[in-house]
Amino acid sequence: MLSRRNVRCSVAASLDIIGERWNLLIIREAVMGSTRFDEFHERIGVARNILTSRLAGLVDNGILTRTPSPDNARIHLYELTAMGKDLLPLLAAIMQWGDRWLHAKVGAPIILSDRASGAAVQPLQLKTKTGIAVKLDNLMITAGPGATEIMRKRLSVTHAAAK
Amino acid sequence: MLSRRNVRCSVAASLDIIGERWNLLIIREAVMGSTRFDEFHERIGVARNILTSRLAGLVDNGILTRTPSPDNARIHLYELTAMGKDLLPLLAAIMQWGDRWLHAKVGAPIILSDRASGAAVQPLQLKTKTGIAVKLDNLMITAGPGATEIMRKRLSVTHAAAK
Repeated sequence: MLSRRNVRCSVAASLDIIGERWNLLIIREAVMGSTRFDEFHERIGVARNILTSRLAGLVDNGILTRTPSPDNARIHLYELTAMGKDLLPLLAAIMQWGDRWLHAKVGAPIILSDRASGAAVQPLQLKTKTGIAVKLDNLMITAGPGATEIMRKRLSVTHAAAK
Repeated sequence: MLSRRNVRCSVAASLDIIGERWNLLIIREAVMGSTRFDEFHERIGVARNILTSRLAGLVDNGILTRTPSPDNARIHLYELTAMGKDLLPLLAAIMQWGDRWLHAKVGAPIILSDRASGAAVQPLQLKTKTGIAVKLDNLMITAGPGATEIMRKRLSVTHAAAK
């Protein structure tokens, strides 16, 4: 997907699909086990018409499936696809950042753990294969195979200018 | 921060601050080295009035600082605070998801690496301290110290219902 100004960017492309408050809260609810319209409606506190349109969009974009409930064909179940389940690191990153910077005083509202061992999930951190922690200070940004020409040029300039 | 329905949620609270397309694209640009209004304007392709309001919001919320340029006091530099720099894992999570699910055919537009070794950053993954990978199938969600009563109740129900 090419966004504005002919720059292909995975951040912008992802935001086109999920980068809207209600979408991410719907995905959060799906991760927490909600499947029915009324569950999403009640737990997110979103207007029904907005919820209807957001759920349809998430189904269209391959994040959720919509299937009739085995118990009652008039009720539909919304469930995360593999693509939707793969949003867990993104959701955890948002949550952990909020825990650190917005809820430091009260403590984390929610703890994520491994079910079998009960061990808590650690804060997400950028690391290389050999375990070097990558922060903004030692981050290098280069053009990948999917970069457009405009981005290649820009990245070479950015690097020349970087300290 | 308590969001709607008296549920304290770090996802919702974070989204209140950064969960808007332009905000995340501004933060992406800041990570890529943009500091001046005109750089953000040109590279994001956002209207000037929107950019003005979003930059002010990010400064108010502690994500960016705004200081006069040493070269020209009429120009201001926008730079990430520690709170802003700490959004790198979130930004990388969005980017990596887009790389996998939206740009798999063309390949990643951008590669993140460690500057000194040149080694690429690995995909972010939820892990416990001892290295157990946590995916949705083995994820346990429990109430933390900052949970509100309503959330505590809900989580106990969720768990009772979980397989």
